[in-house]
Amino acid sequence: MPHTPCLLPEVADLATLNDAALPARLQALIDGKTKPLGSLGRLELLAIQLGRIQGRERPALVAPQVVVFAGDHGLAARGVSAYPSDVTWQMVENFLAGGAAVSVLARQHGLALTVVDAGVRHDFAPRPGLQIRKIAPGTADMLAGPAMSAAQCQAALAAGAEVVRTLPGNALIFGEMGIGNTSAAALILARLSGQPIERCAGRGTGLDDAALQRKFEVLRGVLARHPSATEPLQVLATFGGFEIVMMVGAVLQAAAERRVILVDGFIVSAAVLVAARLRPAVLQRCVFAHQSDESGHRLMLDQLGAQPLLQLGLRLGEGSGAALAWPLLESACRILAEMASFESAGVSNKATHQGA
Amino acid sequence: MPHTPCLLPEVADLATLNDAALPARLQALIDGKTKPLGSLGRLELLAIQLGRIQGRERPALVAPQVVVFAGDHGLAARGVSAYPSDVTWQMVENFLAGGAAVSVLARQHGLALTVVDAGVRHDFAPRPGLQIRKIAPGTADMLAGPAMSAAQCQAALAAGAEVVRTLPGNALIFGEMGIGNTSAAALILARLSGQPIERCAGRGTGLDDAALQRKFEVLRGVLARHPSATEPLQVLATFGGFEIVMMVGAVLQAAAERRVILVDGFIVSAAVLVAARLRPAVLQRCVFAHQSDESGHRLMLDQLGAQPLLQLGLRLGEGSGAALAWPLLESACRILAEMASFESAGVSNKATHQGA
Repeated sequence: MPHTPCLLPEVADLATLNDAALPARLQALIDGKTKPLGSLGRLELLAIQLGRIQGRERPALVAPQVVVFAGDHGLAARGVSAYPSDVTWQMVENFLAGGAAVSVLARQHGLALTVVDAGVRHDFAPRPGLQIRKIAPGTADMLAGPAMSAAQCQAALAAGAEVVRTLPGNALIFGEMGIGNTSAAALILARLSGQPIERCAGRGTGLDDAALQRKFEVLRGVLARHPSATEPLQVLATFGGFEIVMMVGAVLQAAAERRVILVDGFIVSAAVLVAARLRPAVLQRCVFAHQSDESGHRLMLDQLGAQPLLQLGLRLGEGSGAALAWPLLESACRILAEMASFESAGVSNKATHQGA
Repeated sequence: MPHTPCLLPEVADLATLNDAALPARLQALIDGKTKPLGSLGRLELLAIQLGRIQGRERPALVAPQVVVFAGDHGLAARGVSAYPSDVTWQMVENFLAGGAAVSVLARQHGLALTVVDAGVRHDFAPRPGLQIRKIAPGTADMLAGPAMSAAQCQAALAAGAEVVRTLPGNALIFGEMGIGNTSAAALILARLSGQPIERCAGRGTGLDDAALQRKFEVLRGVLARHPSATEPLQVLATFGGFEIVMMVGAVLQAAAERRVILVDGFIVSAAVLVAARLRPAVLQRCVFAHQSDESGHRLMLDQLGAQPLLQLGLRLGEGSGAALAWPLLESACRILAEMASFESAGVSNKATHQGA
């Protein structure tokens, strides 16, 4: 497959975009707040990351967006999911009607919700909140050939970037829906990490033991069918789904625009893994929302060097875990902007007392 | 010390208050939502707990309150904290001025904030949001005798219950401020759990290695000074702080009123530990917000059989960790109230497909 990396956005290292002293200034600001040093733990690291992404001492989150990419998978016909493919389009309708978990959580936190038809096997009536960017009605059967052509992969990458360009704000949560897409994500992880598929794939939406063994068998067959797909874009086209490829394009574009990317679970992480192999600096813009209960997610996070915020046993997707973590990002910004310093509040610092 | 348990509110087992089928109905409601079974993990258990506390299928959180109890500790003069005792009153001023972490987080989440002077060594000017219920200006030195008299302990328990009665709403976050109070909490944990003090006490606001060893030494001395304090109320009066005792009273009252109690970190957990020894059913009303970085908190949570929601390396107190977890409780309620069911949304369930 020919590479056309010239189409991919460049993602600059934040160290070249910010003045060199910014991290130290952010750390000093946090250390001056009225609390014991380091006592806000992970929230302090998050505040520093958000400040570095935005290149300022008072990061602020503006017009946050949830974007759910949906697509169907040819491999679903092989019985790798507990649910039938029709659930993909039915859930798109549910997202738009406001009844899905991510709809509820986005509403709770004031997050705008957009659904993208990346390649669902269904014709949707156009309506507000839905972007129809269908590459094809589902991917091809990976046991027979690659999931998509190189041209389809490039079109999906471009479409994902274009979705981001249509949306306002400086923070994005990507979510996904696609019956069969834990298989696609597991295959991407297996090939890019070199780990056996049994460590990468899990129960998805809830396979029982026998069905999980059949899923392993199918995925081993897929990997054996495509031994030469090893480059990130090849891996993506061979094993991906249209929703996953669009997320790769969206992650690259969002990172290039220096937006905060709040990463959801297993499938979104697979898109980030590919994006990071193409442009490593995307990881500087990524906040990992949670470690999901899907068994390969810990390995995926390790591959990404990621420390997620939450560990709540979630395995739903849709962007729901990221939506749950959203208030923590708001809190991190508010800590920097609103907390008093020892000096401003007239509170004694410990320096003179330690060891007394 | 004479016991006067007749003053303590009764806390009925929820199983006797609710109809027996409520947990099963809550589970069925959640299982019918448009998501794979169990895929919202910890949030599902939380939703069921909130439903059981309120005795209904659509729990709702009304007028949530943060109450920060503050008190000083005679033992602080022994050098068990990295900060001087004056920080207690200075931080009370900071809470009221809106500059502390818990002030910022309460504002973010629309939580009302009340500060209670349980026994600070300072005279505060009365103002809105401050309840002055000072038992004494700080506890006594536990190396010389009990931290407080039995009468003071009873007065503080009654005051804590009274604070709850003055506040509206059906959900409470208790927080605390008191230089030296990780020592008090560690002593309570050590005596009630039977574990060595070195497993129970930690660095608090940030002791270095040498200061931690001195803290251990002081606390070993305190435990040796009071070998016969073993009953919960004796332990509380001997090792507690006024802010801790008031929290015990507040927890008992809140539980008796069937309010949701969102438990913060190490010190609040010590109050819950005592309350649970007195009235085990309080634990049914407690949601544990986070596992703090204070080293004894894991042991404390194990003693309580608690699975906390967050693990963010926090060790600040004030109720800040509970405030951070608050949106998860709102989410749990919204999942029950707002998510569509497979039936209502016309989404195919997996029953017919599993194993296909």
